[in-house]
Amino acid sequence: MASTEARETTRPRASDRGTTARAPVRDAASRAPDSDIALRPVVIESVKPQVDHGRFPIKRTSGETVMVEADVFADGHDQLRCLLRHRQAGSRDWIETPMTLLGNDRWRDEFTVIELGRYEYQLIAWVDAFLSWRHDFVRRNTADEHEIALALQAGATLVRDAVKRAPAGAAKRLREIARSLTVNVELAARRELALGEELLELMNSSANRTFATISEAFVVVVEPEYARFSAWYELFPRSCGPATRGHGTFADCEAELPRLAAMGFNILYLPPIHPIGRINRKGRNNTLVPNADDPGSPWAIGSEEGGHKAIHPALGTSADFKHLVAAARDVGIEVALDIALQCAPDHPYVKKHPEWFRRRPDGSVQYAENPPKKYEDIYPFNFASARWSSLWEEILSIFEHWIGHGVRVFRVDNPHTKPFALWEWLIAEIKRERPDVIFLAEAFTRPRVMHRLAKLGFSQSYTYFTWRNSKAELTEYFIELTAGEGREYFRPNAWPNTPDILHEYLQLGGRPAFMTRFVLAATLCANYGIYGSAFELCENKPRQPGSEEYLDSEKYEIKHRDLDRPDGLRDFIARVNAARRDSPALHYDWNLRFHGVDNDQLICYSKVTRDRAGAMLMVVNLDWEHTQSGWLDLDLDVLGVAGGETFQAHDLLSDARYLWHGPRNYVELNPHVCPAHIFRLRRHERTERQFEYFA
Amino acid sequence: MASTEARETTRPRASDRGTTARAPVRDAASRAPDSDIALRPVVIESVKPQVDHGRFPIKRTSGETVMVEADVFADGHDQLRCLLRHRQAGSRDWIETPMTLLGNDRWRDEFTVIELGRYEYQLIAWVDAFLSWRHDFVRRNTADEHEIALALQAGATLVRDAVKRAPAGAAKRLREIARSLTVNVELAARRELALGEELLELMNSSANRTFATISEAFVVVVEPEYARFSAWYELFPRSCGPATRGHGTFADCEAELPRLAAMGFNILYLPPIHPIGRINRKGRNNTLVPNADDPGSPWAIGSEEGGHKAIHPALGTSADFKHLVAAARDVGIEVALDIALQCAPDHPYVKKHPEWFRRRPDGSVQYAENPPKKYEDIYPFNFASARWSSLWEEILSIFEHWIGHGVRVFRVDNPHTKPFALWEWLIAEIKRERPDVIFLAEAFTRPRVMHRLAKLGFSQSYTYFTWRNSKAELTEYFIELTAGEGREYFRPNAWPNTPDILHEYLQLGGRPAFMTRFVLAATLCANYGIYGSAFELCENKPRQPGSEEYLDSEKYEIKHRDLDRPDGLRDFIARVNAARRDSPALHYDWNLRFHGVDNDQLICYSKVTRDRAGAMLMVVNLDWEHTQSGWLDLDLDVLGVAGGETFQAHDLLSDARYLWHGPRNYVELNPHVCPAHIFRLRRHERTERQFEYFA
Repeated sequence: MASTEARETTRPRASDRGTTARAPVRDAASRAPDSDIALRPVVIESVKPQVDHGRFPIKRTSGETVMVEADVFADGHDQLRCLLRHRQAGSRDWIETPMTLLGNDRWRDEFTVIELGRYEYQLIAWVDAFLSWRHDFVRRNTADEHEIALALQAGATLVRDAVKRAPAGAAKRLREIARSLTVNVELAARRELALGEELLELMNSSANRTFATISEAFVVVVEPEYARFSAWYELFPRSCGPATRGHGTFADCEAELPRLAAMGFNILYLPPIHPIGRINRKGRNNTLVPNADDPGSPWAIGSEEGGHKAIHPALGTSADFKHLVAAARDVGIEVALDIALQCAPDHPYVKKHPEWFRRRPDGSVQYAENPPKKYEDIYPFNFASARWSSLWEEILSIFEHWIGHGVRVFRVDNPHTKPFALWEWLIAEIKRERPDVIFLAEAFTRPRVMHRLAKLGFSQSYTYFTWRNSKAELTEYFIELTAGEGREYFRPNAWPNTPDILHEYLQLGGRPAFMTRFVLAATLCANYGIYGSAFELCENKPRQPGSEEYLDSEKYEIKHRDLDRPDGLRDFIARVNAARRDSPALHYDWNLRFHGVDNDQLICYSKVTRDRAGAMLMVVNLDWEHTQSGWLDLDLDVLGVAGGETFQAHDLLSDARYLWHGPRNYVELNPHVCPAHIFRLRRHERTERQFEYFA
Repeated sequence: MASTEARETTRPRASDRGTTARAPVRDAASRAPDSDIALRPVVIESVKPQVDHGRFPIKRTSGETVMVEADVFADGHDQLRCLLRHRQAGSRDWIETPMTLLGNDRWRDEFTVIELGRYEYQLIAWVDAFLSWRHDFVRRNTADEHEIALALQAGATLVRDAVKRAPAGAAKRLREIARSLTVNVELAARRELALGEELLELMNSSANRTFATISEAFVVVVEPEYARFSAWYELFPRSCGPATRGHGTFADCEAELPRLAAMGFNILYLPPIHPIGRINRKGRNNTLVPNADDPGSPWAIGSEEGGHKAIHPALGTSADFKHLVAAARDVGIEVALDIALQCAPDHPYVKKHPEWFRRRPDGSVQYAENPPKKYEDIYPFNFASARWSSLWEEILSIFEHWIGHGVRVFRVDNPHTKPFALWEWLIAEIKRERPDVIFLAEAFTRPRVMHRLAKLGFSQSYTYFTWRNSKAELTEYFIELTAGEGREYFRPNAWPNTPDILHEYLQLGGRPAFMTRFVLAATLCANYGIYGSAFELCENKPRQPGSEEYLDSEKYEIKHRDLDRPDGLRDFIARVNAARRDSPALHYDWNLRFHGVDNDQLICYSKVTRDRAGAMLMVVNLDWEHTQSGWLDLDLDVLGVAGGETFQAHDLLSDARYLWHGPRNYVELNPHVCPAHIFRLRRHERTERQFEYFA
C-alpha cells in the first residue's frame, strides 16, 4: 500500500523531472524516495574495519578476531537495535550478535574467523518499537494510573504484533503476555511483567525488521597462520652440498632441513629453480661476458631445457622437488618458490609465443631497459598484447603447476611491473580452491603501489625495513605498519638482507650490526626473513663502495659456505627464533608499542597478548660499535604491570633475570657481546582489562 | 578482438565457477577480467574532496575554488597523464585541465565554480605511450646512433598513430613530423624535433585514451554567497512597533529594516508567523494555564485561522509579508522563515489529515512527550504513517508556498526529529529549481546526526559554539569545524544566544560577556546569528538558576524594548559587522588559524585571504571581569609577515594602530571597555606564496 502510493505521488517529482541535479546514485538512499527509503530511518556509517569502502577485503589468519565498529543512528529519539552479522562466504545463514553502544552513536562487536577462505560481515539495525516503548514506559509517572494503563495497552499491541513473527512456542507465550498486560489486575504486577527480562528476550527474538537498514557486506580473507607468523630462510639450492660436488641438488638442499628446523625457520625460500638462459647470460659480478662454466642468474629464466614449469636439470627432477617439499613439511617448513615473470632470450615462450613479447622497430624482441641501462638477458612480457588473456592463463598455470608439486608459498618477483588486475584475478582464482596458498610481494617500489598490491591479495609484503635503521625511522615506520589503516590488508615481512640488498649498516657494522638487525626484524615483525647463509656468516662486502650489491654475488655464482664456522650466527638465530616460537605475543604485529629510553641509540618496544598473559619487552642497541646504556621509561599499563608491583624481566637471550619496579629501569648493552635483550616479563598479577589493539 | 578473447578464455574461470569467493562487486575493477579491466593500468584512489566516497556532494559558494587531489599511479614505470575534469551538471562537455604531480603519486589541480546549482568533477588518467617514449628517449645514449635511429622509428609510429585522433590541422602536421623523424637527415636535428614542445603539445591533444581510467564523478553544490557569509538577526515581529499598539505587525517589522541594515545584518530571521493554537496554549513563562490575552508560542502552529501556509492575522496579510521581504531585499537583507513541522491541537491538519498523526489507545491524538514530560500543546507528525508520501508532498508545498512569497532562506526547527530521507529529497527538489534557496538546520543534537543533516543538503548548521566558552574548547572545536573532514559539507553558524538558550556565561558575565561572545561568533565564524533585541540589551536573567531559559521569555509574550538605550550594543555590533564586511578574510572559515598567547584568558586567531592581501588578527579576552594581558606568539608565516619586517596592527574597534615587530607582541584588554581587538594587519610586502587552506 504505502509503496504503491509512494510510486504514484513522489516518483514523478523526484526522478522523472530530469536527473542531472541529483547526486550520483551510489546506494539505495540516494534514489528517489519510495517507502523503502522513506520509512527506513537508521543510518550505518563509517564501518571499520574496511578497505576503500569495501572495494577490497581485510585480512586475518585462522583464529583471529575481527572487531567491528560503526556509527549507527536514526532521526528522532527512538531506541535502536544493532546486530553484527557474519558468515563464511557461501553459507546462507548469518550468525548475529548484538552490538554494544560505546557512546556518541558508535557501536562495537567482534567475531572470530576459523576456516580458511572468505567470510563476510555486515551490520543490521532498526528502530525497535518495543525497545522504544519500553524505554518510555520505564520513565512514565507511575502515579498517573490512566497513563500507565494506556501505555500497557500500547505495549500489548506491540506484543500481539510480534506473535506472527515468533516461533510457535514463543508465539503462544507472547499471546499470553499480551493478554495479561491488559487484563484488570494490579497495575504494578502488569508493569513488572511488561518490563521483565522474559518479554524483552521474546520481543528481541521476534523484532520487526521490515524497515531495518543493512550495511553493505564486507569481506575478510582468512589465511593460514604462516601468513601472519613466519620466519623465512632464503637459500640457493645450487650452493648446497659439499663444495667438491659443484652444483648442489634438491637432495643437498633437503639435507639442510634439520639444521633450518633447529634454527626455528618455518619457510624455506628458493630463488627460481628453472633452467637458466644461455643467451646473454651474465657472468660473475654481473659481467656481460661470462665464462663457460658460469651458472648464470636464476632470475634469467628459461632455456631450451624448459621454462617456468621446468626444473634446472642440475638441481634434480620433479620427483626430487616434490620430495624436498614433503620432507620440509615433515619438519614444519613450507618451501616457498620464487615466481619471476620474465624470460631469458632462449626461453621456449619466446619462440612458441612471440605474441607475448614486444618487438623493436627492427623486428628483434624488446629486452628490458631503463635508458640508458639495458638488460639484454631479460625479455619482459608484453601485457598490453592483444593476446594478453592467453598469457594470463599461462601465468596462472605456472602457479598451479607448482601447487601441484606441493608448494603453498610463493614469493613473487617485482609484481609491481605486471598488471594490477592480473594479481587480483590470479590470487582470487588460486585462493578459491586453495585458501592455504599465500603470496609474498617483492615490490620494492613507491608506497601507494606497494599498498595496492597488498589490497589486491598479496598475503605479505616486503617493506622498507631494510632502509630504516635509526630509532626515529624504525619507530615511525613500525607505528605506521602496525597502527595505520593499511594494517588491515598490508602484512609486513621484514628482511635485514636479500641477495639484492646489502645495506650500508651491515657493511659497516659487521657481526654486531647483523645481530641487531636480526633481533629487530624478528621481534618488530611477526613475519621476517633473511638471505640465510650469507647472513649467518655476516657477509658484508659490497661490490664497490656505495653499492648495495654483494661482492661475488651468489646470484651469479655457486657459493659453498662453511656454516659451522664458530663466528656464525646460527646459535644466536636459533635462540631468537625459540623466543619467538615460545612467545605468543611475538606472533602478532598490532600489539607493538614503543617505550621511552633516554638514549637515542637504544630502542625499546613491547608486544603483549590480548589477555596480557604474555608480555615481551625488547631493548636493542642500534650502535654496533659502542656499549650503550640508559633508563627505560616503560608504559606499565601496556605491559599489564600494576604501578606498585615488582616484576621480573627474564632475558631469553642471556637467561639473566632482573627484578624491576616501576617504569624507570636501567639497561646496558655491549654490541660485541649481545646487542639486545628479549625479555619475558613475569608479573604477580596482571591487569584484568583486555589489551585493545584491535580497535 | 582482445575483448572477445577475454570473454572466451577468462570469463568462465573468473565469474561462472561460483561467485561466493569473490569480493563484492563495488566498481569495475573487481569484475572478472575482460580487456577493459586487464588493459586499464591506472589506479585513481583517495580523491579529495569527497564525502563518503561520493555518496554526498561537497559544498561551495559561487566564486569559490575546488582544490582536487588524488593518488594516481599504474604498475610499471610508464609515464602517466592525469587530467581534472569539471562541468556544470547537465552540460555535456567536460572542461579538462592537467593535474600536477606533487610527489609520492599525489596529483593536484583546482577549478572555480561560478553558477549556482551543481557541478561535477572527476579525474581521467592514462599511461601515455608518447610521454613514456619521450621520457626514455631523453635518457638514451646519443652516442649509440643505431639505438637513437630505432627509437626515432618507434616514436614516429606513435606519432602516425596519433594522426587518426587529431583534428585536421594537427593531423597534417603530425604526419609531416612522423615523416621527418624517420628521413635520413642528421640525427641531432631529428632528436630535437622529437623532443620539441610542438610535438609534445600536438601529441598531448591527440592522446590515446582507449584505456584511460576515469574516476567516479563527484558533485559540488554551489550556493549563493549568503550560504557562506551571513549575519542573522532573529526578532519576533509581534514585538516590533510601539508598546502602545500591542501586537506588532509586518509593517512595524519593516520599520526596523534601516536599523538592521545599518548594524550590518544581512539575514532577518522570523520565528513562525502562522496562527497560534488556542488549545493547550502555553502562558507566560511556559505555564500551562494562560491568561486570555497571552499570545502563545509561535512554534505552536495552527488554529482555525490556518496552519503552515497562513499568516497570523495580527501580523498582517500575505501582501504585507511580501512587501516586507521585498523591502528587506532592497536594503541587502534576506528574510528567513522558521519552518517547524509540528501542529497545535487546533491546526487544520489535525482534522483534515488525521492520517498524518499517531493515535493513543484511547483514540486521542498522540501529543509530543519525553516521559515523564508531556507537551500537550504540540502534535508531532507521524512520519511512519501509511500516508507518509502525501505528508511529504504537503511539507514540500509549505516551503514552495513561502518561496512564492519571495523567501530564499529557511531555518528548519528540529530537523533531526524528522526523517533524514525527507530532507535529502526535499532540499534537492527545491534546489533543482531554486539553487539560491538555503536551509539552516537547527539540530541541537548529537554530532553524527548534525553531520548527517548537513550531508543531506542543509546549507548551514547551528553548532555547539554556545557551549564552548574556554580557550581550549573554542580552539579545539573551531579547528574541528574549519580543518576537519566535515568542512566539505558542514557550514557552521555560531549563535551566542537564541530564544531557547541563554548560556550561563552570559547570565554571569553581563555586557562584557555579550561583547566577547559576539566578537567570537562574528570573527571565528563567517556565518553567525543573534537573538537580536535581547542580545542588544544584554538580557541575561534566567527563568531560574541553572536554567538556560529566559525569564519572561519572548516565546510566550510580546516584549517591546527600547533599543535606543545608551547601554545597548547597537554601535558595537555595527562596528564589528563593518569590520566583517570590509575584510574579505572574514568571509571564509577555512583560513582560521590560532596563535599562541601566554595567558589562558586571551585567545588569538587570524583569518587571511588566499593571496594574503587581507590579514585579520583577533585577540579576545574571555574573562568578563578582569583586565587580562599577555604576549602573543604569532605565526608570522601564516600572517604573510616577513620575519624581520615591522608591521602595523590597526584595531578596527578602537581605531588604535600599533607598530609590531616579530612574533612576540604585548596586548592588554579591559573587558569593561572593550574585550577584543579586531586588527587589520598592514605589511610593506607580503609572502608571495598562496595561503593553502584548501588543501
